[in-house]
Amino acid sequence: MSQHGLLIVISGPSGVGKGTVCQALLKQKADLVVSVSKTTRQPRAGEKDGVNYFFVTPEEFQQSIADGDFLEYACVYDHYYGTPRRAVEKMLAAGRDVILEIDTQGALQVMQTYPQGVFIFLLPPSGAELRNRIVKRGTETQETLKKRLAAAKSEVELAYKYQYVIVNDRVEAACERISAIIKAEKMRVMRNQELIKALVEEVKE
Amino acid sequence: MSQHGLLIVISGPSGVGKGTVCQALLKQKADLVVSVSKTTRQPRAGEKDGVNYFFVTPEEFQQSIADGDFLEYACVYDHYYGTPRRAVEKMLAAGRDVILEIDTQGALQVMQTYPQGVFIFLLPPSGAELRNRIVKRGTETQETLKKRLAAAKSEVELAYKYQYVIVNDRVEAACERISAIIKAEKMRVMRNQELIKALVEEVKE
Repeated sequence: MSQHGLLIVISGPSGVGKGTVCQALLKQKADLVVSVSKTTRQPRAGEKDGVNYFFVTPEEFQQSIADGDFLEYACVYDHYYGTPRRAVEKMLAAGRDVILEIDTQGALQVMQTYPQGVFIFLLPPSGAELRNRIVKRGTETQETLKKRLAAAKSEVELAYKYQYVIVNDRVEAACERISAIIKAEKMRVMRNQELIKALVEEVKE
Repeated sequence: MSQHGLLIVISGPSGVGKGTVCQALLKQKADLVVSVSKTTRQPRAGEKDGVNYFFVTPEEFQQSIADGDFLEYACVYDHYYGTPRRAVEKMLAAGRDVILEIDTQGALQVMQTYPQGVFIFLLPPSGAELRNRIVKRGTETQETLKKRLAAAKSEVELAYKYQYVIVNDRVEAACERISAIIKAEKMRVMRNQELIKALVEEVKE
């Protein structure tokens, strides 16, 4: 049966390991595609334009907002990040499952603009471990580190707004759990209305 | 984390193969337990009391109704079938996942009495195949066969009331799909309130 693709939103507090989990998942599952966001922030070491992000100017970003071409966008630590709506919708219509790795601000917007998405929140194994991961990252100034720690605290509480929570204790285990969620979501009645309708018609003949 | 068990309701039209799928699933997954129903009908060849059903008299069945000890009960083809409530709740409280294989009448009742259950509807690969399976069963008189075919037609439409649909094309594939649903359901936010709460408290310290 040819189904519309799933938009799988992987989110969670700053430092929980969203990026690592998504990269591992994409390596494992050849049928998944990732949504590449636009951002106005500078590339970090090793990041490539068009792969990790589309790096754009603030002016270009504002133009995309004006064009209505964001499924979500947010300003985080003084930089803009956004998910191009048309690119994602095109992949979904072609039956591809799309992974969206985004911060909690963005995820809350997608719950409004694309409620049929699958919303997964990654939890750290413990509060102490979350702190460790943020500190170890080491790409932060003291000031942004402080901001990030404070944000992470309030972000964990947003888990209640999602559909699923996954404890990110081991990357492979997290990937397996996401795979099970994707498989299960494809069987939800609301995603199989046409299949059921066709069978009801056939049985009634 | 010690979670409350899941009540997994496997249902679908007469003849779709609920029993075969559930037996295969129980063989594969040692952590699942099955709820044994009470019934007033006569045992079929090979059926054992306490394994397939508890075979009881109509008087005993009425007493259990009076005692409020049914999660659901129904009268199908002039016989009573019911799921003992206390036995199931005891297993769930002990963290066991319980499989309930029931007809659509029973499942609709459980949606009322135990809405936190997981409701899965098995679909036949086609209307013709459903008819084949009912006819091949061969345990029916001409009259009950007619009744069963008519019932199956109206039952397929009830799929819309469930959470998940699975096409029962191959038994092993159906079992795999049910396993994915069980795994995913354990990650649902509503089933992890305590885990999230504990982490929110810890992070806030």
